[in-house]
Amino acid sequence: MKILKTIEEVQAIRKTITSSVGFVPTMGALHDGHISLIKKAREENEIVVVSIFVNPTQFLEGEDLDSYPRRDEADKKICELCKVDYLFMPDISTMYSKEEILIKAPNKSYMLEGLTRPGHFDGVLQVVLKLFGITQPNNAYFGKKDAQQLSLIMQMVKNLFLPINIVACDIIREKDGLAMSSRNVYLDEKQRKEALLLSQSLYTAASLISKGELNSILVKRRIEEVLKDLDIEYTAIVNREFDEIDTIELKNTIILIVVRFGNTRLLDNIWI
Amino acid sequence: MKILKTIEEVQAIRKTITSSVGFVPTMGALHDGHISLIKKAREENEIVVVSIFVNPTQFLEGEDLDSYPRRDEADKKICELCKVDYLFMPDISTMYSKEEILIKAPNKSYMLEGLTRPGHFDGVLQVVLKLFGITQPNNAYFGKKDAQQLSLIMQMVKNLFLPINIVACDIIREKDGLAMSSRNVYLDEKQRKEALLLSQSLYTAASLISKGELNSILVKRRIEEVLKDLDIEYTAIVNREFDEIDTIELKNTIILIVVRFGNTRLLDNIWI
Repeated sequence: MKILKTIEEVQAIRKTITSSVGFVPTMGALHDGHISLIKKAREENEIVVVSIFVNPTQFLEGEDLDSYPRRDEADKKICELCKVDYLFMPDISTMYSKEEILIKAPNKSYMLEGLTRPGHFDGVLQVVLKLFGITQPNNAYFGKKDAQQLSLIMQMVKNLFLPINIVACDIIREKDGLAMSSRNVYLDEKQRKEALLLSQSLYTAASLISKGELNSILVKRRIEEVLKDLDIEYTAIVNREFDEIDTIELKNTIILIVVRFGNTRLLDNIWI
Repeated sequence: MKILKTIEEVQAIRKTITSSVGFVPTMGALHDGHISLIKKAREENEIVVVSIFVNPTQFLEGEDLDSYPRRDEADKKICELCKVDYLFMPDISTMYSKEEILIKAPNKSYMLEGLTRPGHFDGVLQVVLKLFGITQPNNAYFGKKDAQQLSLIMQMVKNLFLPINIVACDIIREKDGLAMSSRNVYLDEKQRKEALLLSQSLYTAASLISKGELNSILVKRRIEEVLKDLDIEYTAIVNREFDEIDTIELKNTIILIVVRFGNTRLLDNIWI
């Protein structure tokens, strides 16, 4: 595995590659969720590129940019074990210059996650577009856990006609059901136990739907019952285009929940 | 020459091309300025792609979108004579969908041209990024006449690390000095004569500078004397990054003028 720090290095190498490139952009602190993306990329491509870059433009003022977990040495080891070909770890000054073209995600990016984090997705799309420009992947791998992010990235690729196949990868969970997240380390023991209710509420919803309940309001009510002792930020039932829907459509619905534990927001979702 | 209407056609063909692609994006009504871009692309690339698309998002309300000159048949003939390989002529509904990721040009895009046409460059960058996504050119050709546009496109390519070489091409002029523009057809006979003062004022400025005058204010004053009977919108002296400068720097200065003739705005500039 080769570690690359500059864009010139990546571009010079990219020029020599004619076979398929699979790209996994990350913010590091790699867990089994990331590993599943890397493994999928490894299976499906000749060359696998992973990036680790904690992107400042997607953090809002007061968010956890400075305290975001960083584990460069462990991450390098993981990438090496996963047979990554190139690990791109740029500095902020490599990725950003004084004056920047900005990307403006569509209005719906200001709903749900964007309501609490206005402008967050503008930063996500900006850095993803830069990383796509640098690595020119054939396939790029994103987790379904950040479902709204995934949806907006798919829309950007479609709008800009980028010749990139976006591969949506299933959520990876701890044995007890908690969705993997770099931010899980922020939880104390009590919170870690309570957090199990997130996946449980989603399984309850899925079971209700499998019995024929397609009314969004009733399904949300059931979820909120399971989560009643927690600080729910939102629950939402949307279609694949991220429009909220009143009636659940099988194979076209995502149920989203966000719960706060102190300053930590935990996201989870299930694709029906 | 093959005429392509859909993105799928372009993408399918693009996949099969491994040699260098030169791309000339235009809004049609091709004149000798465009032809010089196409010829340069023809010299420098194996494959030449020209697009003709009158992009609605770069026109402001009340501008000449509906009356913008359209000469599809003549344009096709010209492209054929210039040995273009592929002419891409998409419809608006091919290029845009209901919901769009927007591109936000930096603040300086709201100066000069952007002062009269706020948001114009957002639309320019949006369509250029789409066209780059579709055609994936190695080299893309733009005229120096739209100097601020050229500067912003170069910045976008730099910011997004696109592996595209932007080729800046000299202004092509009528024999009497008028810079070629698709909008010159809007001029009546009297205006057409008066328009000669634009290039004359720039030549006067260049001659003054060649004699050692590097004070921007004095050079602008001289230009404005030449243009005194016309409706000047602005004159500006900027460096290649489009910051206005007080002292002219040789090989790093662009002098810009815009004059109105009724509803028609004529741009001209000279690179020192």
